Amino acid sequence: MNLQKLRENILEQGRKAKQAEKFLSVCRTEVKDQALYAMAQALLDQQEAILIANQMDMQRAQENGLKKSMLDRLLLTPERMEDIAESIRQIARLKDPVGSAEYATRRPNGLDIEKVRVPLGVIGIIYEARPNVTADAAALCLKSGNAVLLRGGSEALASNRAICSCMAQAAEKAGIPEGAIQLIDSPERQGSIYLMQMPEYVDVLIPRGGINLKKSIQEHATVPYIMTGMGNCHIYVDEWADHKKAQDIVLNAKVQRPSVCNAVETLLVHEKVAPIFLPQVAQSLQAAGVALRGCERTLQYLPDIQPACEEDWEEEYNDLILAVKVVQSLDEAIEHINTYGTQHSEAIITENYTNSRKFMLSVDAAAVYTNASTRFTDGGEFGFGAEMGISTQKLHTRGPMGLSELTTFKYMIYGDGQIR
Amino acid sequence: MNLQKLRENILEQGRKAKQAEKFLSVCRTEVKDQALYAMAQALLDQQEAILIANQMDMQRAQENGLKKSMLDRLLLTPERMEDIAESIRQIARLKDPVGSAEYATRRPNGLDIEKVRVPLGVIGIIYEARPNVTADAAALCLKSGNAVLLRGGSEALASNRAICSCMAQAAEKAGIPEGAIQLIDSPERQGSIYLMQMPEYVDVLIPRGGINLKKSIQEHATVPYIMTGMGNCHIYVDEWADHKKAQDIVLNAKVQRPSVCNAVETLLVHEKVAPIFLPQVAQSLQAAGVALRGCERTLQYLPDIQPACEEDWEEEYNDLILAVKVVQSLDEAIEHINTYGTQHSEAIITENYTNSRKFMLSVDAAAVYTNASTRFTDGGEFGFGAEMGISTQKLHTRGPMGLSELTTFKYMIYGDGQIR
Repeated sequence: MNLQKLRENILEQGRKAKQAEKFLSVCRTEVKDQALYAMAQALLDQQEAILIANQMDMQRAQENGLKKSMLDRLLLTPERMEDIAESIRQIARLKDPVGSAEYATRRPNGLDIEKVRVPLGVIGIIYEARPNVTADAAALCLKSGNAVLLRGGSEALASNRAICSCMAQAAEKAGIPEGAIQLIDSPERQGSIYLMQMPEYVDVLIPRGGINLKKSIQEHATVPYIMTGMGNCHIYVDEWADHKKAQDIVLNAKVQRPSVCNAVETLLVHEKVAPIFLPQVAQSLQAAGVALRGCERTLQYLPDIQPACEEDWEEEYNDLILAVKVVQSLDEAIEHINTYGTQHSEAIITENYTNSRKFMLSVDAAAVYTNASTRFTDGGEFGFGAEMGISTQKLHTRGPMGLSELTTFKYMIYGDGQIR
Repeated sequence: MNLQKLRENILEQGRKAKQAEKFLSVCRTEVKDQALYAMAQALLDQQEAILIANQMDMQRAQENGLKKSMLDRLLLTPERMEDIAESIRQIARLKDPVGSAEYATRRPNGLDIEKVRVPLGVIGIIYEARPNVTADAAALCLKSGNAVLLRGGSEALASNRAICSCMAQAAEKAGIPEGAIQLIDSPERQGSIYLMQMPEYVDVLIPRGGINLKKSIQEHATVPYIMTGMGNCHIYVDEWADHKKAQDIVLNAKVQRPSVCNAVETLLVHEKVAPIFLPQVAQSLQAAGVALRGCERTLQYLPDIQPACEEDWEEEYNDLILAVKVVQSLDEAIEHINTYGTQHSEAIITENYTNSRKFMLSVDAAAVYTNASTRFTDGGEFGFGAEMGISTQKLHTRGPMGLSELTTFKYMIYGDGQIR
């Protein structure tokens, strides 16, 4: 497709989404919920066609040499289709945030001011090659009264096409207008860039991805955006740490699911506990298949591991690799985290009250922990029921984004003729 | 100054601000408040030098033919200096939003999760040629624990230099670190653009201004921003309006202070009331010096006024001019507002419950009113005590921005060794 035509198509999708949004913003919860249940059922009813489309994606991906962990994310099975449908039904059961008043007040002049949650409008989402995100994101946006423009990874294009058209048709039959759920259907990278550049139609863009996507957004985006999912997370084992807690938490945060953004990437250890703690934790990490990369002082205690270089402090491995650094003080740990961290999730392991307090106040991140695994930064674990991603920026919202974070508010003011 | 040097200077200011922010983010309220009182006093103690600097700005502005309303905004007098000082003292008396918990919850696994307000970090502000904004913005940012980079209109450069250095010195003497309050000291337009392009140092940019600033921001900014102050506001006089309320509100919203963003710019009148209401309201508006511009049907009832063209529906006059349009229905009024409005403040005048409800739900704006003047969209009128501007975007915050809107939050999570 030539680029001019592609741009026109995407603009037209934006116009349609904006039109659908007007209906969605005042749509009753019961209508949205019925559409969600219909979408879940349609995905199961039409799963044969979806699985065939997914097989096409898988075949192409294998030919292109996509790595195994990526192939696994791309794969759909009947069991996974059931999970996707159940996830949509769960979202239908969550409380609708739209219309709830954060506060209401009567001013001295008799004006009643209410601050009421309303949908953001049209949400654009750019995400990796995981077809389940297509379904989840569409469901979360619909439930919160937003129209959505989905731009998934090109490796999953056939799967996303099948899922998206199935959901959109089911939603339409249930009374949701055309345009509420749309896929940016183009393998060209330019498709993402056009989506970043239509502030007249896109109220918020939510990019899910790594540093390259962030750079592209900062360079090209003219729409407001919320960056999500970049996690260079640290655990600092303090001089006063309980070694057993520290070891369990480090192991959990690295090994339980290394590919996610709230997994730990660098371990910082106070010099006073390093001689005893490092050999212990290294043993259990290595037994779990983790490759360690250490600073000079770490190598004194773990002479067999690979040395760490400057890039290791910056890198989000998303893999069974952990950088290790010995620090002289809590202050050095905080400074390291505030320098190299991505403001996602940071933890201190300590029994010392004052050190905990200092770490919690001074570390600048969406989530700061004392004596718990960074893996808890998650919409489900926080009790949100579902999540769109983890915001790593300070504007609008920070940390896990549930339904409420997909809304904004307006002030509704009731008077009897008041003037100034 | 050559541009390379200018860029380096501004980057260095960003670095200093980021450094100061670390102190400010955990600074006790009493220290910030003492600094604010000291700043207010210093502005009064050094007012002679500030007024001399202001005279230089005034003289240059007069030579450059700045229009009278702008000259008045630029002018400082001893009375205005007292107002500025009192405004800073008022901000010192407001409640500090930092550290308050929006909620706290204990999860089933025993984790305690608190959502706690923290400063945004470094705030950049681009604003028009009003020296009082320099003082207000610095005080609001300091009170909310943020470092600030101020970029005022070049017409006020000498005044801003004097005010800013006076405040920064007073703050430093009171224990606030260097770099907390800084002026981007350059008349070149490029100074603004560099401020828009340092995401490593600027957490949020708050541009206060019109459509040209908005376009420049959309084109150049790589930092997150909150657009403020664009107000193409409407009042819709419904078929069921009380004519007396309608007339008082329209007059107030246009005339009481026409230069501000919450003044009304377009009057929409239902066709059934137009024949009687339009001549009445026109008389009182014209008596107050307002020039009217009408659609074709308006001209039937007000044959002597100027015809309105398409641009009139789009324009924010900020002046004693009002566009007038006759509409066939509430739906047409809502459609017009959602097409031409800037999502600032919109009002319906009606005694009809269902029409009020439909307008309040369907109009997409920061503030929607039934039977009150749009002029109430203001931090003071909302009870915030002070304001940084009126956000007209949906992300982060909408409407008047007080101290709380200059903060974000972080999750503080306390455990006893929890893992997943």
